[in-house]
Amino acid sequence: MSEVVQKSKLAKQAAQSMGTLTTEQKNAALLLLADALVTEQQAIMEANSKDLQRGKESGISSSLLDRLALNESRIAAMAEGLRQIVELPDPIGDTLDSFDRPNGLRIQKIRVPLGVIGIIYEARPNVTVDAAGLCLKTGNAVVLRGGSSALFSNEKIIEVLHRALSRSSIPVDALQLILSPDRSSVDEMLKLNGLIDVLIPRGGHSLIQNVVNNASVPVIETGAGVCHTFIDESAQLEMAIRIAVNAKAQRPSVCNSMETVLVHEAFAARHLSALAGAFETARVELRGDDRARVLVHSMKVAEPADWSTEYGDYILNVKVVADLDEALAHIRQYSTMHSECIVTEHTANAERFLQEVDAAAVYHNASTRFTDGFEFGFGAEIGISTQKLHARGPMGLPALTSTKYRIYGSGQIRE
Amino acid sequence: MSEVVQKSKLAKQAAQSMGTLTTEQKNAALLLLADALVTEQQAIMEANSKDLQRGKESGISSSLLDRLALNESRIAAMAEGLRQIVELPDPIGDTLDSFDRPNGLRIQKIRVPLGVIGIIYEARPNVTVDAAGLCLKTGNAVVLRGGSSALFSNEKIIEVLHRALSRSSIPVDALQLILSPDRSSVDEMLKLNGLIDVLIPRGGHSLIQNVVNNASVPVIETGAGVCHTFIDESAQLEMAIRIAVNAKAQRPSVCNSMETVLVHEAFAARHLSALAGAFETARVELRGDDRARVLVHSMKVAEPADWSTEYGDYILNVKVVADLDEALAHIRQYSTMHSECIVTEHTANAERFLQEVDAAAVYHNASTRFTDGFEFGFGAEIGISTQKLHARGPMGLPALTSTKYRIYGSGQIRE
Repeated sequence: MSEVVQKSKLAKQAAQSMGTLTTEQKNAALLLLADALVTEQQAIMEANSKDLQRGKESGISSSLLDRLALNESRIAAMAEGLRQIVELPDPIGDTLDSFDRPNGLRIQKIRVPLGVIGIIYEARPNVTVDAAGLCLKTGNAVVLRGGSSALFSNEKIIEVLHRALSRSSIPVDALQLILSPDRSSVDEMLKLNGLIDVLIPRGGHSLIQNVVNNASVPVIETGAGVCHTFIDESAQLEMAIRIAVNAKAQRPSVCNSMETVLVHEAFAARHLSALAGAFETARVELRGDDRARVLVHSMKVAEPADWSTEYGDYILNVKVVADLDEALAHIRQYSTMHSECIVTEHTANAERFLQEVDAAAVYHNASTRFTDGFEFGFGAEIGISTQKLHARGPMGLPALTSTKYRIYGSGQIRE
Repeated sequence: MSEVVQKSKLAKQAAQSMGTLTTEQKNAALLLLADALVTEQQAIMEANSKDLQRGKESGISSSLLDRLALNESRIAAMAEGLRQIVELPDPIGDTLDSFDRPNGLRIQKIRVPLGVIGIIYEARPNVTVDAAGLCLKTGNAVVLRGGSSALFSNEKIIEVLHRALSRSSIPVDALQLILSPDRSSVDEMLKLNGLIDVLIPRGGHSLIQNVVNNASVPVIETGAGVCHTFIDESAQLEMAIRIAVNAKAQRPSVCNSMETVLVHEAFAARHLSALAGAFETARVELRGDDRARVLVHSMKVAEPADWSTEYGDYILNVKVVADLDEALAHIRQYSTMHSECIVTEHTANAERFLQEVDAAAVYHNASTRFTDGFEFGFGAEIGISTQKLHARGPMGLPALTSTKYRIYGSGQIRE
């Protein structure tokens, strides 16, 4: 039996008793996990230094090395994340609906754990702790398959968490880490129907597409964001610049940052140079269509492929549009349906945009950067779903649950 | 461009404007569809007779021929089904949540259509009408891929419905039927991410498994049911017999019927022969384990594979168990997590069963045959989900929806 099958079976077995854990039991366990991370931070940092060493030798980029690195404050933040999950309400056992049928049957719809959640992710070891905490809080077992560049760190973190779990009511087997760095261990997870209930990929485009395209286990797709901001004719200049610059440059590497600004031609005629100047100050490279470049000569040319590129960087496409219709058509064609914004003082245009744009989050006069579980007040986030099934947009604890119907009878049969 | 891609593109285009249709517009369209079916029933029956003729020539079974056959009363029932959908509340546009953030953002969670739903199904032409009605009522476009044995019937039905749609507010392109009988048209649908948002397979085991195993488009898995009834020591004899016989024999071909009865040894010692007699009267063949066959010699032997077989027929496995624990272990091993029942007068045992059994519907003292959208009072059913993602158990109109977040700001940016 392969490592993936063996560990997934253990996880499934553990999951079978976890739906009956009380909130107090789960919270007590999470606090033990948080304390253990801090107590054993030295061992974790030593393991992490092995990953960093290997990363340097294999020549990975300094930004990846930075994401991989753990220190006291990052470990403290991981522990603090677990303590915050303790504070969140436990959705498991909630009665979502209850009704009586004319034949006397009483039907209740109850929130239950999903079962076994598989998480496939890349470098950052904090995802290991975060995903474990969110899954365990919701009574799920979890099979983690992190990136090989963080293998020493992840292995040590799981060892620490396992020791803490062994003193808790949550079975140790509820938390599994796949150690095999082979790509085949991912391929195997994708097909484990019956052992894994749901897969959540977290990482770059190719990681997510591999999961989406090849999994037979149900998937929650996360991540890809080609997001737009449309600046309408009536937009306030100062607000439009503030929102657009924030959406692009506050943190370009994340999925809710903007890749293309669409500018109404009347606004562009008056203000495109001011807008371009603000982006220049923020060190954003601009790539414009023909109409934009007539107004601001310094822009590079936006190539056809640019309109559908998620730069994740200080690069922005600029397109001048005749009206709201052209903006909507562009968004329909290029959006990944993540986060889309209109800046306007025209209420009817705002309502039409919010109604017609088919995205997880649609904004009037606010930065797309707010698409985030914490910013939405969920107190947690397992990812941002860009599919329409099950969950859409930022996912908090309820996204990690399913439901079941309990039916109470007194001998009813179907006629 | 293939037929599947072409029609899915048309469906997607149509879907883009359907989220803004009013309930009145959609209901008026559904009433036109219902009327058209009745008005043009003669043409539909003529097309159906071609399918029946071809079916007879190719030697399909009489039960399949019966499921395929349309007559005035069946067409009237299809039209009546559409009228019932008109009566149901429209979930689209419902505000599921609304909250204000400290920074002044107002966030609303709104129900929206899924977009384009692909339905892959088998013989019965009534599914064509039913699926069309449910999808259109929820503002979705639908791409139907029915079985080739009903192709003439389906083609004529769609022709009739298209003519009716052309006089309505719903775009004609919202309803697409794939005519190609090649298996490759199914394969193509499974991979149409970006054009089809969700696939719902409806049919036999191999049809569903093909979709689940090979689709990259998100799937709602429906159907398979290896359901159990556990008769506990304290069960009332008469009630236990009534529920068990109904669960097996009221309509054995459907997914919520029972395949195995688990009998507590104390109940079995006193009553297994009476239970077996009742099944004999209902013409159910019994296959027992060793302990059952000691008590009722006439039973056949249950082979290992039988415990996981969905007979869909008048055949039942019988197993004598020592206690609730053994019943729960058997269910954990063999259940498809569809519908499971305990018959008991012992409240603590009932609660433990309802809590621990991980199935879409868990029953105390009622037949598993009630797992059905109409019996649950949903007024409709697009299928019974046996997965944990998105929807679980009988699916009514809300299962055909997604959500989006609308965020109203006044210039907020992320710090």
